[in-house]
Amino acid sequence: MKVALPILLTMGDAAGIGPETLVHAFRRGRTDGCVVVGDPAVIRRAAAITASGSVPVAVLESPDDLPQVPAGCLPLLAPPALPPGLGEVPWGRVEARCGAAAARCIEHAASLILEGRAAAMVTAPIHKEALAAAGIGHPGHTEMLQALASMPGQPAPPVRMMLANPELRVVLVTIHISLRRAIDAVTFDAVLETLRITHRAGRAWGSTAPRIAVAGLNPHAGEGGLFGDEEQHVIAPAIAAARVEGIDARGPFPPDTVFMRARHAPGHEGEFDVVVAMTHDHGLIPVKYLGVDQGVNVTLGLPFVRTSPDHGTAFDIAGRGIADPASLEAAIAMARALLPSRH
Amino acid sequence: MKVALPILLTMGDAAGIGPETLVHAFRRGRTDGCVVVGDPAVIRRAAAITASGSVPVAVLESPDDLPQVPAGCLPLLAPPALPPGLGEVPWGRVEARCGAAAARCIEHAASLILEGRAAAMVTAPIHKEALAAAGIGHPGHTEMLQALASMPGQPAPPVRMMLANPELRVVLVTIHISLRRAIDAVTFDAVLETLRITHRAGRAWGSTAPRIAVAGLNPHAGEGGLFGDEEQHVIAPAIAAARVEGIDARGPFPPDTVFMRARHAPGHEGEFDVVVAMTHDHGLIPVKYLGVDQGVNVTLGLPFVRTSPDHGTAFDIAGRGIADPASLEAAIAMARALLPSRH
Repeated sequence: MKVALPILLTMGDAAGIGPETLVHAFRRGRTDGCVVVGDPAVIRRAAAITASGSVPVAVLESPDDLPQVPAGCLPLLAPPALPPGLGEVPWGRVEARCGAAAARCIEHAASLILEGRAAAMVTAPIHKEALAAAGIGHPGHTEMLQALASMPGQPAPPVRMMLANPELRVVLVTIHISLRRAIDAVTFDAVLETLRITHRAGRAWGSTAPRIAVAGLNPHAGEGGLFGDEEQHVIAPAIAAARVEGIDARGPFPPDTVFMRARHAPGHEGEFDVVVAMTHDHGLIPVKYLGVDQGVNVTLGLPFVRTSPDHGTAFDIAGRGIADPASLEAAIAMARALLPSRH
Repeated sequence: MKVALPILLTMGDAAGIGPETLVHAFRRGRTDGCVVVGDPAVIRRAAAITASGSVPVAVLESPDDLPQVPAGCLPLLAPPALPPGLGEVPWGRVEARCGAAAARCIEHAASLILEGRAAAMVTAPIHKEALAAAGIGHPGHTEMLQALASMPGQPAPPVRMMLANPELRVVLVTIHISLRRAIDAVTFDAVLETLRITHRAGRAWGSTAPRIAVAGLNPHAGEGGLFGDEEQHVIAPAIAAARVEGIDARGPFPPDTVFMRARHAPGHEGEFDVVVAMTHDHGLIPVKYLGVDQGVNVTLGLPFVRTSPDHGTAFDIAGRGIADPASLEAAIAMARALLPSRH
């Protein structure tokens, strides 16, 4: 019998809530077929501060060893050369070694997946200032994974961040840059590429041609040019070009009402399958408005499935054992759903 | 017995849904103490296209005549010099005469209120392109009312738009300008003035010191300067200056989660009374996400109360009698609630 490849769960920033949410999700039985990639001492400490106390950790030599792990043991892969002392870092503080360790776990997980030894990656939250303190040249997971997935000498594959909850799916044209730079980054090529990536992803998940709504950049989508012309000169031409390729893209629509129109809720059938938003906050404000517990972050365009919870490290509550694992569990469930074999 | 001054309901764009929502609200008994400011032919046509048919219109000489209007008659004041033929304009089309008429109604209502002959204004939607076609130099109600409320030789009073629904109140630093220009308009003075206006308005409605959350401009509120520095150089200093004046302003918070934190819903007590947002769409996306039927627009800083529904002219459905008057009715109820005498 062929055994399904495991899903890798990276531990995230050791000073944040990532490790304790992994332990919670494991105890709640939501991590079948998954292996944590992290530091054993960090996971043991995270278990110790929860109400249920310690958890036995099975440190694996290889992802292939997962089927041999006894029930009740949390399976873990430890990347080589993690910084020492991670099990004693202060909770809720930016530390360079935490940033470095988080990056090592992501790199290790990506290698295993690209070597065909694991199926997908679910990433617990990292802290961008800790990454920067460790000298990591990427502001977040998405950019790091894009670089890791690049072939030597080839350009990095274009990727986009999708945020999804049970009501709404949003794909972002721009993410971790200032709003001023984001406006400059809304180009014909960037919008068209986003539409292509969104269309391909939607097809992979079962829609023949997903209905894509495109939000404008300016108030009222520019109100016919009165409040900005990016809709006329950039976004509308990109939509037209996408439609020529058979992509069901529509808009640009006013940002303030398109998400409401796309919302799928009881008694409110959404008009679209997914919304493409020009800026980080146009897209994330509506996804997060009803709460972050069901939100999942998906990276589209990588050569593998990658999801993550849509909350951060929550330094203010880290180490108290009270962090809610619901979004992490939703991310694991989403990763399973997106795997071709229905992992 | 002293009779309360009437609330004036301006008819909005004659080709949009404003007139029919006014007729609906009148029929549903939600316009007690109110007088429509508009063209009698427009209101008669709007009644004729509804399922219930025509409504008798009582054209008043003066707001003081309201108590003499028989029950079942819709009271109306017709501004002098309205363009002819308004009762036959095509539904759902931008027309200069509709823009001109809408502006005349707003001007007339403002005069009556400033003369002390009416108490407040509730404005049905106008179309910005129709205003522009009529040569009106203001992009929307807010800017027009600000100009109308200016004393000769004095600067216009600073105003801000607030959008409110039963869950969330949001005040905007910038509104009807391109996103690129909005970033430049987020200045220390603009943010501080917004905080002062919001604080004063909140006090007038009963909070000693309303809890004001301030949203940042950039993703993650700049993430410590990595994604933009307006938070550090502009917004945080304005918050600090406001706090010195006794204003309970906090932030800047990441735009993508502050609205969720401020949301008042069953089982979810909001952390703040009102959120100040830097841009039109950061603020309006969450207010509109759950639907526009309960949304109300309030202009803060004017010398009188002004509210409006938070939908537009809806040219696509105008003239079919199916427009929902819920937001207009909520705007009338909000105007009553904001009048000192509990009108």
